[in-house]
Amino acid sequence: MNEKLSELYRKFDEYKAMNLSLNMARGKPGKEQLDISNDILDPALLGNYKSADGTEVRNYGVLDGIAECKKLYSEILGVPEKNIIVFGNASLTIMYDYIAQCMIFGAGDRPWACQQGIKFLCPVPGYDRHFAILEHFGIEMINIPMDAEGPDMDKVDELIKDEKVKGLICVPMYANPNGISYSERVIERFASLRPAAKDFRVIWDNAYCVHHLSDDCDKFYNIFEYASKYSNEDLFIEVASTSKISFPGAGISVMAASDNNIAAVKKRMTVQTIGYDKINQLRHAAYFRDYDGIKAHMAKHAEIIRPKFDAVLEALEKNFAGREGYSWTVPKGGYFISLDVVPGCAKRTVELCKEAGVTLTGAGATFPYHKDPEDRNIRIAPTFPSLDELKLASEILCLCAMIAEEEKNQ
Amino acid sequence: MNEKLSELYRKFDEYKAMNLSLNMARGKPGKEQLDISNDILDPALLGNYKSADGTEVRNYGVLDGIAECKKLYSEILGVPEKNIIVFGNASLTIMYDYIAQCMIFGAGDRPWACQQGIKFLCPVPGYDRHFAILEHFGIEMINIPMDAEGPDMDKVDELIKDEKVKGLICVPMYANPNGISYSERVIERFASLRPAAKDFRVIWDNAYCVHHLSDDCDKFYNIFEYASKYSNEDLFIEVASTSKISFPGAGISVMAASDNNIAAVKKRMTVQTIGYDKINQLRHAAYFRDYDGIKAHMAKHAEIIRPKFDAVLEALEKNFAGREGYSWTVPKGGYFISLDVVPGCAKRTVELCKEAGVTLTGAGATFPYHKDPEDRNIRIAPTFPSLDELKLASEILCLCAMIAEEEKNQ
Repeated sequence: MNEKLSELYRKFDEYKAMNLSLNMARGKPGKEQLDISNDILDPALLGNYKSADGTEVRNYGVLDGIAECKKLYSEILGVPEKNIIVFGNASLTIMYDYIAQCMIFGAGDRPWACQQGIKFLCPVPGYDRHFAILEHFGIEMINIPMDAEGPDMDKVDELIKDEKVKGLICVPMYANPNGISYSERVIERFASLRPAAKDFRVIWDNAYCVHHLSDDCDKFYNIFEYASKYSNEDLFIEVASTSKISFPGAGISVMAASDNNIAAVKKRMTVQTIGYDKINQLRHAAYFRDYDGIKAHMAKHAEIIRPKFDAVLEALEKNFAGREGYSWTVPKGGYFISLDVVPGCAKRTVELCKEAGVTLTGAGATFPYHKDPEDRNIRIAPTFPSLDELKLASEILCLCAMIAEEEKNQ
Repeated sequence: MNEKLSELYRKFDEYKAMNLSLNMARGKPGKEQLDISNDILDPALLGNYKSADGTEVRNYGVLDGIAECKKLYSEILGVPEKNIIVFGNASLTIMYDYIAQCMIFGAGDRPWACQQGIKFLCPVPGYDRHFAILEHFGIEMINIPMDAEGPDMDKVDELIKDEKVKGLICVPMYANPNGISYSERVIERFASLRPAAKDFRVIWDNAYCVHHLSDDCDKFYNIFEYASKYSNEDLFIEVASTSKISFPGAGISVMAASDNNIAAVKKRMTVQTIGYDKINQLRHAAYFRDYDGIKAHMAKHAEIIRPKFDAVLEALEKNFAGREGYSWTVPKGGYFISLDVVPGCAKRTVELCKEAGVTLTGAGATFPYHKDPEDRNIRIAPTFPSLDELKLASEILCLCAMIAEEEKNQ
């Protein structure tokens, strides 16, 4: 063992002796963030329990959401209210249920389940829960590399000539995990896609479209506005939620889609439910009122989490600036920082971190089948730990990455 | 036209002239019932937003429900907490999703979608939304007649020799719409079923198992207790919800099932959601506390709705007692009264009611494919209208049934 590695191990042992238990694994808001939303739970917001059009929110009725919530998301996403459905507490469930529907009933063609060997394109690194849905349904996943503007659209254009390729799943703004927002050029390429499959769908997960870290933020592009130029509205299923605006697991979620897709989804919903929780919908609509209300609330979140992002970035800068083999993103919004370490070292880094009491998302999780072809990507979720914990955890992460690198060089 | 009919029409026209708008169509609680649950919305119930085991209910986490809710339904249904999953706001969605799962992944055998011509048994009259789910998935439905003890189990035993018969869907207590509770003899027959299909499932929808109209109530039989004698626990998927305990559409729902079935469902849930609304779960658990809390609350509901049931029954008794061709149930709980009119007259009765401003569930709705073979069953939902409205609506219903009868006799 060389001296350098011995020295790194010595530091590592010091951290280990601290018996830490720090978690940078999941994109969870911290307690301070949860607290700023507590007033949403004030029953005074519910008034006489009626929505603006007089609907009693405590009783059955209204399949696709109260008008106020549709209006709110109509403003945010820039689509007409008729093209919005308000669902329950999770956009993940919207996506799962939509793909399940395509499997059983198809998307304007034969059921996906009846078409052997169907595939989806997956910009990588990406969101592990997206990949889990596709894997669950036995849909083959194909990696699409990304650069600072978004996915490699030449590769997408090439692959969609195969009619077995039925779709693509992505986070177009402040992507999970690299924080990239697709450029207008990439948006235009998406809008003008000409897939061979008649039943091709892009799952456009806009989970973070209002989650700016400061006023210096990325631009939101309304995919339906661009797609309409190419009569391609049917290609896109957009989802969003208030999970990281109000409360994770207790917010509201929405789908935005074309008239055709909304009709197909409602046909299923009519059978699947009488309606979602309208009390919770009214609570949210009454608290936020409009897009300005959302913006003001998100500014409070930004105040809390920006220092956390900064702390991680400072540690990365301090340890890795100019050091070969390391790169990371500096996102302007979202919930993650994506770190690339020396190829072949991500798994070992995460393992070492765990030993030192720092839990990270499993290495490989940001790729389909948990297979990072270069074993180098690590997703960092800075929001949940306290600032002090985060500083410590970031230092440990950097140390572990360097140990992994040195071990590899032995 | 005979004089009798002319006289009936004269009365009918009088009602028509009143321009009424009364609704006995859906099993919706009335406003007074909603009001008794308002305290559930008090944020003080949420304390420090922690469940008993310290889980922060405002954040992500906990796939299958907080322990308090599992415990509550463990008491109500008499199954261990490990055999309960707490879901979102609708047991209908639990049933839809379970059958969707069987379609795509099967229930221990090949996917149902890959087995041509599968069938379900449907005790009739039954719940229209159950039938809608089966029809949606293209599952053939076979009527099973019911008597005062429950479904004709000899017919069930005969039909399940066909391995294409994959299941049965029913409301075993205070059935929708006839209010019948299955007798212990019938429960025992269910528990000991020996279907040819290895992937046979009984969807045991206990929507009304705590919805007694008075202390003179039907007995609850725990199907899992009986099924265990025959090692048949895997056959039953039980669901329930607080929809008609707290708020329709804003309550919590649960599944109770065997270890094997719980594991299979959780495997899917892990992909479909991060978890359901734990704030709402804690709200419910903190408000009701235990089964006694539920009982006390249901007694309040009974106070409100018993006079409504009585009003309908009085009208039926007054108009139809001793009259040939009419029969109805006198339920001890649940949400409905089932009226059989003279064969061939149900559709016309509902049509006439509509003309007079009284909305009823569509005739035929209580049968698969909306086909009441005798065109005689009408479902009456007495809970939503006020008592005065209900008295009036019941009189109109009786009049319309008698007009339909006289018209038929012309």
